Amino acid sequence: MPPDRAHVAILTVSDRAARGDYADLGGPAAEAWLRETITSPVQITRRIVPDGRATVADALRALAWEGADLVLVTGGTGPAPRDRTPEALADVIDFDLPGFGEEMRRASLVEVPTAILSRQNAGVRGRTLFITLPGKPAAIATCLDAVFAAVPYCLDLIGTARIETDAARCEAFRPRQENA
Amino acid sequence: MPPDRAHVAILTVSDRAARGDYADLGGPAAEAWLRETITSPVQITRRIVPDGRATVADALRALAWEGADLVLVTGGTGPAPRDRTPEALADVIDFDLPGFGEEMRRASLVEVPTAILSRQNAGVRGRTLFITLPGKPAAIATCLDAVFAAVPYCLDLIGTARIETDAARCEAFRPRQENA
Amino acid sequence: MPPDRAHVAILTVSDRAARGDYADLGGPAAEAWLRETITSPVQITRRIVPDGRATVADALRALAWEGADLVLVTGGTGPAPRDRTPEALADVIDFDLPGFGEEMRRASLVEVPTAILSRQNAGVRGRTLFITLPGKPAAIATCLDAVFAAVPYCLDLIGTARIETDAARCEAFRPRQENA
Repeated sequence: MPPDRAHVAILTVSDRAARGDYADLGGPAAEAWLRETITSPVQITRRIVPDGRATVADALRALAWEGADLVLVTGGTGPAPRDRTPEALADVIDFDLPGFGEEMRRASLVEVPTAILSRQNAGVRGRTLFITLPGKPAAIATCLDAVFAAVPYCLDLIGTARIETDAARCEAFRPRQENA
Repeated sequence: MPPDRAHVAILTVSDRAARGDYADLGGPAAEAWLRETITSPVQITRRIVPDGRATVADALRALAWEGADLVLVTGGTGPAPRDRTPEALADVIDFDLPGFGEEMRRASLVEVPTAILSRQNAGVRGRTLFITLPGKPAAIATCLDAVFAAVPYCLDLIGTARIETDAARCEAFRPRQENA
Repeated sequence: MPPDRAHVAILTVSDRAARGDYADLGGPAAEAWLRETITSPVQITRRIVPDGRATVADALRALAWEGADLVLVTGGTGPAPRDRTPEALADVIDFDLPGFGEEMRRASLVEVPTAILSRQNAGVRGRTLFITLPGKPAAIATCLDAVFAAVPYCLDLIGTARIETDAARCEAFRPRQENA
């Protein structure tokens, strides 16, 4: 039985935010989006790690082990030398869900031509769904708006917590389950 | 020389259909679509296997070995624990054709937001083209409508059977071959 | 410090062009597009190699070693037996940028349904960005039109040459760099 409260973790990946050189803006933006959207009981935790394949992969494994149902990762998905979030994600997931990256890039592309540089993706490890997001608050909202309607059903399918959403903001879609 | 009759195989991947717990709807839906669309001589065979990486991979290898020109696989492409069709496909193909998955998801997304959860793909092993489809009959038609116009030319390029289609339903496109 | 002149290399992949059986049309088409678009100092070189994973991978490695900032590859991205450009690209890059292939296929799909057969991609090795393009001149222009606005900023991020473009043809987009 899934617990009666979903556990969503937000991981900010940023050398400068981890050092305290500037305030993490991406993590709070993702949290605000979730708090305005999810209407069922939810615990949201936030963590910050420096960029890097090992730092991010270790944090992702720890969050899965702690029982997070959904992990949103913000930052580190570009082509710059320190951007290694995609490699870290690939290290920890059982399989990816390429439709998430495709759709987040397509939605972002309406706003900026450089959206094609993003290596955003999503994937599943056991009973945890990971989604990697951009670092900028406005881009985070664009991406969550684009894909979140499919997230509650994905969590159902992987056998983890049930999430309900405010349909006025983002209507969770659950297909009827005949002969799926 | 390719034989004068194309061999298309349809593989239904479903624990419940394999056990006989319910009738396979996906396989017949894919066959009906093909019979209404392909106008050249074609042999269509159907088979059912349970979900699972090894069961599906073995069936795909067998179909390639038996000389199938085109294999449509229905079911097992989602994120649920028993859905392992994408892993099986990856095990048997020489290379994938990511444009098929992108376009099938995009077409399905017009109908349901959960289309991004599909891990559909296509790929080539020797002279066999494999395309993985959803399990639901309506979604199968949506996906075949979205990509089949490119299938006959793909079969030409991999050196297997020539297929002609009813242009009123789905017009096969073959670019002229100068300096390709 | 990046040099004051960008080095762009164009690699034509074609058995027949390498043998001299016909004139390379793709390489000159890519060069013409670049010369009409890039307004900053640029050196453009062209090379031709036969199809094949090893021939193409060796040429790509050599171009990166010679300091090319951007390498456009034309040809060999389809599903035919001699098309092995995608495998060669995968052999040499540190990571791929899937948004390039997605967007090039989507732009090409407006023109031909067979665009989904293309295995085009892009990726980074050290300080070199590689983009694989179709072989046909018209399709090359379609693809460059679709993605080039993001290329100058990508080169900035990987720390290589700065490129300026003619905004009337293709406006380079560089997001402001706060909290990226």
